[in-house]
Amino acid sequence: MTLQQLLGEIVGARNVLTAPEDTKPYFTDWRRQYSAEAECVVRPASASEVSAVIALCAREEIAVVPQGGNTGLVGGSVPTGECREIVLSLARMNRIRAIDVLNDTATVEAGCVLAAVQRAADDAGRLFPLSLAAEGSCQIGGNLSTNAGGVNVLRYGTAREQVLGLEVVLPDGRIWNGMRALRKDNTGYDLKQLFLGAEGTLGVITAAVLRLFPKPTATATAWIALDSPRAAVELLGLLRSRVGDRLSAFELISRACLDAVLRHSAEIHDPLPAAQPWYVLAEFGDSGSSELLRERVESALEECAERGALRDAAIAQSNEQTRGLWRIRETIPEAQFTNVKHDVSVPVSRIPEFIEVTERELGKAFPAVEIYCFGHVGDGNLHYNVGPENLMTRREEVSRIVYDALKAFDGSISAEHGLGQLKREEVRRHKDPLELELMRALKRTFDPKGLMNPGKVL
Amino acid sequence: MTLQQLLGEIVGARNVLTAPEDTKPYFTDWRRQYSAEAECVVRPASASEVSAVIALCAREEIAVVPQGGNTGLVGGSVPTGECREIVLSLARMNRIRAIDVLNDTATVEAGCVLAAVQRAADDAGRLFPLSLAAEGSCQIGGNLSTNAGGVNVLRYGTAREQVLGLEVVLPDGRIWNGMRALRKDNTGYDLKQLFLGAEGTLGVITAAVLRLFPKPTATATAWIALDSPRAAVELLGLLRSRVGDRLSAFELISRACLDAVLRHSAEIHDPLPAAQPWYVLAEFGDSGSSELLRERVESALEECAERGALRDAAIAQSNEQTRGLWRIRETIPEAQFTNVKHDVSVPVSRIPEFIEVTERELGKAFPAVEIYCFGHVGDGNLHYNVGPENLMTRREEVSRIVYDALKAFDGSISAEHGLGQLKREEVRRHKDPLELELMRALKRTFDPKGLMNPGKVL
Repeated sequence: MTLQQLLGEIVGARNVLTAPEDTKPYFTDWRRQYSAEAECVVRPASASEVSAVIALCAREEIAVVPQGGNTGLVGGSVPTGECREIVLSLARMNRIRAIDVLNDTATVEAGCVLAAVQRAADDAGRLFPLSLAAEGSCQIGGNLSTNAGGVNVLRYGTAREQVLGLEVVLPDGRIWNGMRALRKDNTGYDLKQLFLGAEGTLGVITAAVLRLFPKPTATATAWIALDSPRAAVELLGLLRSRVGDRLSAFELISRACLDAVLRHSAEIHDPLPAAQPWYVLAEFGDSGSSELLRERVESALEECAERGALRDAAIAQSNEQTRGLWRIRETIPEAQFTNVKHDVSVPVSRIPEFIEVTERELGKAFPAVEIYCFGHVGDGNLHYNVGPENLMTRREEVSRIVYDALKAFDGSISAEHGLGQLKREEVRRHKDPLELELMRALKRTFDPKGLMNPGKVL
Repeated sequence: MTLQQLLGEIVGARNVLTAPEDTKPYFTDWRRQYSAEAECVVRPASASEVSAVIALCAREEIAVVPQGGNTGLVGGSVPTGECREIVLSLARMNRIRAIDVLNDTATVEAGCVLAAVQRAADDAGRLFPLSLAAEGSCQIGGNLSTNAGGVNVLRYGTAREQVLGLEVVLPDGRIWNGMRALRKDNTGYDLKQLFLGAEGTLGVITAAVLRLFPKPTATATAWIALDSPRAAVELLGLLRSRVGDRLSAFELISRACLDAVLRHSAEIHDPLPAAQPWYVLAEFGDSGSSELLRERVESALEECAERGALRDAAIAQSNEQTRGLWRIRETIPEAQFTNVKHDVSVPVSRIPEFIEVTERELGKAFPAVEIYCFGHVGDGNLHYNVGPENLMTRREEVSRIVYDALKAFDGSISAEHGLGQLKREEVRRHKDPLELELMRALKRTFDPKGLMNPGKVL
C-alpha cells in the first residue's frame, strides 16, 4: 500500500488530501513567504488517530508538520520541502469537551478556533483572556504550541500561563495524558511546559485544560498623548500603582503609525485636536459598573496630567468610541504593510533607550529611513517595522542593526511570534552555545529521529 | 588532598563544615523525620564557586544535595545517606542584585530569605506576592526549586509564575545564564521551566529574575460561616464574579480545626457568636482606599447572604482584627500537630465530594477518626490531616485511603510541598508509567551520573 493508503486506513480516505487545489492552502504560510510540497495533508479526528498517524510516520521515517489555523508569521506550520513530510491538520479535533465553572476551567481539543474557546467561556459567564488579531481562524493548539501573546498579556500572561493540563502525542506515537485540571500539583517535572512554545518539534498537542477567569463587567478605554516612549513607560508605572491590574492593555503607537493609518483609511480620524509625537491606547477592565471604572480612570489620568506625565487624553464615552480607538490600533499592520518587520522585546524599563539607539543607528545607515514603532509596551514587546518599501531589498542589513541593538539591551528577537523557519538561523547569534546545546539535547531526548516539524526552531 | 581540602580551596576552609555540631542542622530536616550524614556542608558565595564545587563533585562522583532554608516538609533538602554526598548550602548567596521598578522585576540570589525579597520589593513600592508560613527562614532558591505555593496563589499563582529568568549551575558544573528580564520571549524551549519545581535534581538554581506587582493599598479580611464545603466552593464563584481578582486568599477551615485552635490557645476566641460547621477566611486586596474596598466586600457578602450562600460573616474593622482572624488560620498546624498529614489537591469543583467520600471511607476503617481539614480552597488545595494521635502507627493505611480517593478525583498527592524523599515511592502509584519514563529521560539527559540530589523525586 502507498503511504496515502495507509494513512487513509487510519483517518478515512477523504481525510487524506493530495490534490494540489486541496493541499495548497496547507503548504503555504499566511504571509506567503514559505511554500513547499509535502506527501499529503492528513486530518485526524481524535488523539488516537493522531497517535496511529504519527506511529506510522515514525516507522516509515516520514516527518510530521503539525498545523493549526496556519496563521503563524514565521513559517512554523508549513513544510520545508527538505525531506519526506506530511502536514498533520488538527482542524477536525474541534470539540469543547467541557466547561467547569466551579473549577474555572475549559477542556478543549487542539483544533478549536480561538474565538470559539472565547465564546464558550463567555457563554458560561467566564473569560478566556487570550486574544490576538488572528483569533477568528487560529487554533488553540497552535496558540499553545507557539505560546501566543496578544493584547491581554499585561494582565493575564501569555498562552503558557493559561494552561493547567495537556494531552500530547509523542514522536513515537504514544499519547501522554497530562490532562490535569489542578491549580497546584508538585509531583515532579512539569512536562507540559516542554511542549508549550516548542512549535510542534517535541510532540503534537491534541487537547488542553485551560484556565478561565471572572468576566470583567466594566471596561474603559483611553487614548493618551505623550512626549516620548520614556513618558509612556513612566505613565505605565503610575497607572499600575493607581488602578492595579485593572489595566489590561497598554499599547504604544508612534505618530508615524497614526499618520499611516490616517492616510490608509478616510474613515479614521485623529482622536485629539492637535498632532502629538506618541500615543498610548490603554484598556481597563473590572467587575462592577463601567461608570465607576471610568471615573476612577479619569481621576488617575487627571493626576498623571497634573504631574506632567501626559500631554492630552480622551476617554471613550461609548462602545462605538471604544471600537473607533481600537480600530486605529488594529489598522496599523495593513497601513504600513510592506517594510522590514521585527517582533522584539526588551525589559520595559529599557524601551525608551532601545528606541532611541536603534533609530539613530538606522538613520546613520539609511538616511531616508521610516520607522513604524508600536506594540505591547506593558510587556516590553515592540513591533518595530522599518521602511520605506525599497528597504525590503536590504532587509538583512536592516535587521542586523535592529538585532544587534537588541543584543545590547538583553532583548529577544522573537517576543511572541516564535522562531519557525524565519528566525532559526538568527537565534544562533543570540543564544549562548550552552543554551542551544541544552535545547538540542531536549530535542534528541524526545525526538531522536528528528521527525517532528524538522527545520523549525533548531 | 582530601575532598574537604579541595572544597576548601574553592570556598575557603571555614565555609566547609565538618564538625557534628556545625553540620547537624543541615543534615536533619525541619520536621525531624529525615536525618543522614554527608561528607560535609559547603557554603559557596557565588555562582562561580558553586560551579567549581559541582565540577569537582562530578569528577569525584560525589552527590550534591542543594539546600536553602531547609524548611521543606518532604525531606528534599537533606542527605539520604545512601551514597557519598555533600550538602551545598546557598545561604551565603543572599544579595538582592537589583530592583527595576519600571520593569517591575527583582534580580536576586538563591540564598535570599523570602521575607528579605518581600521587603526589598516593598521598599521599592512594589509587591512580591509569594507568601508562606516559613517566609522568615526559607530561601527563594528553595521556593523556586520546589515551586512553592502559599496563601496568595489564587491571585498571583505559584512560585513558577513569578519567574522571568534563572541562573542555574548544571550537573557538570557549567553555568547556564538564563537571567532574562523579559515578559515575552519565544525563542525556543523555555529551559527555566525544567528547573522550577525539580527539587534540585537537574541542577542548582543560583539566581533569578522575579516579577513584581503593584502594591495593594487597600485590604479587607472576612470571616465567613458556611453550611458545607459545597457552599464554600459556590461562594468562591459568586465572590469572584462580584469582586474579581480583588479576592487574594480563600481559606477553608472546618469546625474541628477551629475547636482545636480554641483548645490550644486561650487568647483566641470564636469570631462569631454561634458555632458553625465550616468557615472561610477571605482576604481582599485593591488599589484605592480600604474603606471603599470594605464597602464593596460588605455589599458582595450581603448579596451572598440574601441568596443563602452563607450563614454569617464578620469583616475585620481594624488591623488588629485582621491579625486576629489570620492568627486562627496560622495556629491550625500547631493546634493539631501529631496526626497523619496530607497536602493534596483536586479540581476546585470536586472538593465537596472529595471531602465527603474520604471522610466516609476513613470512618469505615477507623470509627474514632478525627479529621482536620483546611487549606487553600481557591486553589483546590487541602491540608487533610487525620487523627487521633494513635493513628500515627497506622499512617500507611490512613494515607492509602486518602490517596486512593484522590486518584478517583484526578487529584494530586502533593499540591505544594513536592515529592522529596517522602512521596517518591507513592507517586509511582499515581503517575502513568509513560510520564515516569519521560521524567527519567529528562533526568538522564541533564544528570547522566545521577549526582544531583539523588533519592529525591525519582
